[in-house]
Amino acid sequence: MMSKLAIVVFSGYGHTLKIAEAAAADTDAVLVEIDANGDLDNDQWQQLHSAKGIILAAPTYMGNVPWQFKKFADATSGLWAERAWQDKIFGGFTNSSSFNGDKQITMIWMQTFAAQHGGLWVSLGVLPANTKAAERDDVNVLGGSAGAMVQTPADASVDEIPRGDIETVKIYVARISELINKLS
Amino acid sequence: MMSKLAIVVFSGYGHTLKIAEAAAADTDAVLVEIDANGDLDNDQWQQLHSAKGIILAAPTYMGNVPWQFKKFADATSGLWAERAWQDKIFGGFTNSSSFNGDKQITMIWMQTFAAQHGGLWVSLGVLPANTKAAERDDVNVLGGSAGAMVQTPADASVDEIPRGDIETVKIYVARISELINKLS
Amino acid sequence: MMSKLAIVVFSGYGHTLKIAEAAAADTDAVLVEIDANGDLDNDQWQQLHSAKGIILAAPTYMGNVPWQFKKFADATSGLWAERAWQDKIFGGFTNSSSFNGDKQITMIWMQTFAAQHGGLWVSLGVLPANTKAAERDDVNVLGGSAGAMVQTPADASVDEIPRGDIETVKIYVARISELINKLS
Amino acid sequence: MMSKLAIVVFSGYGHTLKIAEAAAADTDAVLVEIDANGDLDNDQWQQLHSAKGIILAAPTYMGNVPWQFKKFADATSGLWAERAWQDKIFGGFTNSSSFNGDKQITMIWMQTFAAQHGGLWVSLGVLPANTKAAERDDVNVLGGSAGAMVQTPADASVDEIPRGDIETVKIYVARISELINKLS
Repeated sequence: MMSKLAIVVFSGYGHTLKIAEAAAADTDAVLVEIDANGDLDNDQWQQLHSAKGIILAAPTYMGNVPWQFKKFADATSGLWAERAWQDKIFGGFTNSSSFNGDKQITMIWMQTFAAQHGGLWVSLGVLPANTKAAERDDVNVLGGSAGAMVQTPADASVDEIPRGDIETVKIYVARISELINKLS
Repeated sequence: MMSKLAIVVFSGYGHTLKIAEAAAADTDAVLVEIDANGDLDNDQWQQLHSAKGIILAAPTYMGNVPWQFKKFADATSGLWAERAWQDKIFGGFTNSSSFNGDKQITMIWMQTFAAQHGGLWVSLGVLPANTKAAERDDVNVLGGSAGAMVQTPADASVDEIPRGDIETVKIYVARISELINKLS
Repeated sequence: MMSKLAIVVFSGYGHTLKIAEAAAADTDAVLVEIDANGDLDNDQWQQLHSAKGIILAAPTYMGNVPWQFKKFADATSGLWAERAWQDKIFGGFTNSSSFNGDKQITMIWMQTFAAQHGGLWVSLGVLPANTKAAERDDVNVLGGSAGAMVQTPADASVDEIPRGDIETVKIYVARISELINKLS
Repeated sequence: MMSKLAIVVFSGYGHTLKIAEAAAADTDAVLVEIDANGDLDNDQWQQLHSAKGIILAAPTYMGNVPWQFKKFADATSGLWAERAWQDKIFGGFTNSSSFNGDKQITMIWMQTFAAQHGGLWVSLGVLPANTKAAERDDVNVLGGSAGAMVQTPADASVDEIPRGDIETVKIYVARISELINKLS
């Protein structure tokens, strides 16, 4: 069965996948996981084609998405030329070990990729928690705006991802899901 | 009367204003022109508040919007904190003397500003004209994707703005106008 | 007396100025403070002309430097055309209330401005503190790379700027100062 | 023999390689070509380690470097943690089919990658040719600033790359080469 919302995800060590799973569980989103060689199978491509919205989900490695995610992006150049994804809804989130860690460079590229496909980009839509009283588990304590950001320490397991960051992604994915239903 | 679509524009030498006027003439968009001191009057702020969509229009000076446009942006920080513009539709276009001329840095900032306000960003949605047969007056010959780009030589008058670039902006503004009508 | 290193700074509420003062105290850097109207006087312009290195220092407001800092940048367009600052050394730092808060958009613009003037951009050059053991006062706990980042909560006074962030800026300014001496 | 300057290049269809070869011929730069699987051999890694300067050279595909180039970048994460490339000189150039074509997103990432490694980024340092009299074969007619840009139409062969764009890259590589000699 095809879903209106797809989360296309690459995860090197399982953190980003776990976040994506948590977000998908609250909506009807389908996970489309890019494999270790940067490939998708035909059914996965169909999921993306039929979705009204696509959420880009990847860690930030060396200032951008991992090469496997970029390989997926490069493989869409024919779809780009055919305008196959025109007017789809897009969003994105990324995880890295530092509070900043150049996550925003990843977000800029994600917005650019969505724009090339003729998409609409949905912002996070949540104010940051940025006063002295703010705590690590607050929603959007990292202060993202274009999409959702997650910071997992370099030596933290998949069970140690900050809860507030996961909650931020869940709120964001729910926002995109609602928008898609409204537009349908 | 309030319009569903507003183009908030600053123009140092008249080129960007002329482009905005051409685009507005085809739609029901209202022009909200920032003055030489970076200010808007109360009626102009009301136009922005009541609009469902806001198009950001400015030349690129020294790698970003002119200070007057940034002064307008800084003046929206209270609106940002109140989420007053949440879920508005945004787009943007920029003009500069070079084909690139760091126009894309302006576009990235425009997308960021829209995201901070909780907006949806509409991409250009038009393929570039990028073969050997492409001509200067083709639509999107500059190859923008996030928004519309215009290149007017440094010594060109407001009557010498390339026609294809103006046409690109018109197509883009019409796309945003249609989307707003669809969402209403 | 002219200094080899200038820190051109705008500060809306005193935080960025205090950080710049702390960094300048350790080196021979001169502070060039942009006034509330975005202007510099002739002596200040001379300080910038004679410096071999210029550090750009500003808070991030609405996703970029404040309008006053951009007004300064716009005022350098004649210098740009004359290549007056060609081959100068550049760096930059920014402060905002959130961990991210779109500080990186400011950094991208600062790098672009430096590049337009034909400059060399010096990176922070310090690894992030990004393990579970990392503490708020560690050097580069924010995880910047292009320049130095400071996060001061929205309701924090100038005496409550995180010490580790100030130390990060001091290390960065010292790095730039040493490079200038090496190149002289 | 090891060279002071290395150009690490990936080329999908030969255009970027041809430009890199033209630039290297004028200097003592060594070409380090990433293969179709995104890999380098040990000798190539040694060339990069021993070089004082590294120029990043890649086409822009879907808004950033091709996945093979990103795979190379991802493979440097251990070097990043060891600060193995600290204080190297960096520059970059990119080719795509459109005048803009989101080349600047590639340039931003290249600058970020260089900064992560603790490098110094060298700007293009050449004014744009942007008056009405400007011709397609002028130096920097594309109006880049952070690095050099090349626009080759989608259907142009490797023998049809605009001469002025190649000349722009050559001037830029010579500038970086001279700077390295000055710093040695």
